[in-house]
Amino acid sequence: MGEEKTLSSELVYEGRAVKLRIDTVRTPGGRETTREIVEHGDCVAVIAIDADDNVLLVSQFRKPVEKELLEIPAGGIEPGEDPVECVRRELREETGYLPRKVERLGGFYSTPGYCTEYLYLYLAADLTPDPLQAEDTENIRLVRVPLSQITGLITSAASVMPRALPGCWPFLSIGRRARGRLIG
Amino acid sequence: MGEEKTLSSELVYEGRAVKLRIDTVRTPGGRETTREIVEHGDCVAVIAIDADDNVLLVSQFRKPVEKELLEIPAGGIEPGEDPVECVRRELREETGYLPRKVERLGGFYSTPGYCTEYLYLYLAADLTPDPLQAEDTENIRLVRVPLSQITGLITSAASVMPRALPGCWPFLSIGRRARGRLIG
Repeated sequence: MGEEKTLSSELVYEGRAVKLRIDTVRTPGGRETTREIVEHGDCVAVIAIDADDNVLLVSQFRKPVEKELLEIPAGGIEPGEDPVECVRRELREETGYLPRKVERLGGFYSTPGYCTEYLYLYLAADLTPDPLQAEDTENIRLVRVPLSQITGLITSAASVMPRALPGCWPFLSIGRRARGRLIG
Repeated sequence: MGEEKTLSSELVYEGRAVKLRIDTVRTPGGRETTREIVEHGDCVAVIAIDADDNVLLVSQFRKPVEKELLEIPAGGIEPGEDPVECVRRELREETGYLPRKVERLGGFYSTPGYCTEYLYLYLAADLTPDPLQAEDTENIRLVRVPLSQITGLITSAASVMPRALPGCWPFLSIGRRARGRLIG
């Protein structure tokens, strides 16, 4: 076990959100091979809970999967941006609410076999309406789901899974306590 | 709201595991823009629980993030392969165990903003040793973690998050019941 030494690296594509590079590496066992690596910036995802114990979800069309998906609000951290600021910006852009309280819950690498993205998970509460102009939000629809129905939604084979929400589950029980702390 | 019509599509790169294409689309609002889309095959991830209520995790070096990560066993579904067969193959390759019982728990799109991958989640139990040759497994190390310690592992800021394991959390309580059903 051990790291793979990079022998050379070729940038194949550099786009707005995604870069693709091919690294030629030597494995710890001495074998030479290549790794296809998607570079994508780190992201935040937010469990935002309103005063009535609804989780704010967003529904939007996702071209890669050609479907409208129900997800927790999420988005990319801009260069130099603090993750907490990113949470506030993304939540406002996607739901029209600004949180007064934001708490880090954890995070994980989304698809570390081929992509660099790390996903930070946050809890947001004490939400106040602060909508943007309609032009910025036209393709995202806000959906409120009672916290008590979230498990059913995640584990229902019939439903489209909210992106990253399953990933937040271990934090939801913490989240409830944290929310009590944040709000109470 | 609605789908985005593809006006043209350019294949930028076609590799072993990853393709990259750029779609030019027209949004429902009539705007023309591009979407950078990583094509990656669907995957399985497995919560495998042994007779002593340990979850089988695997530790391996991941070049995209330049770290050794602790993850639940996971891997790509081969063309024509049934997801359950993939679970059995990947579990054997990565842990040296074959499950007698496999149950579908759910799944989700990993990063639907820019990638096509869907992750199927499975529970595996009734494990029997059936190791492969060492050459196939040299870069993966098996780590057994008691089920009772999994929450702490996931939510500990200090630990490296097991990939996709947080995503499995809502299924773990189901999993325990299912395991009872599977084994009992």
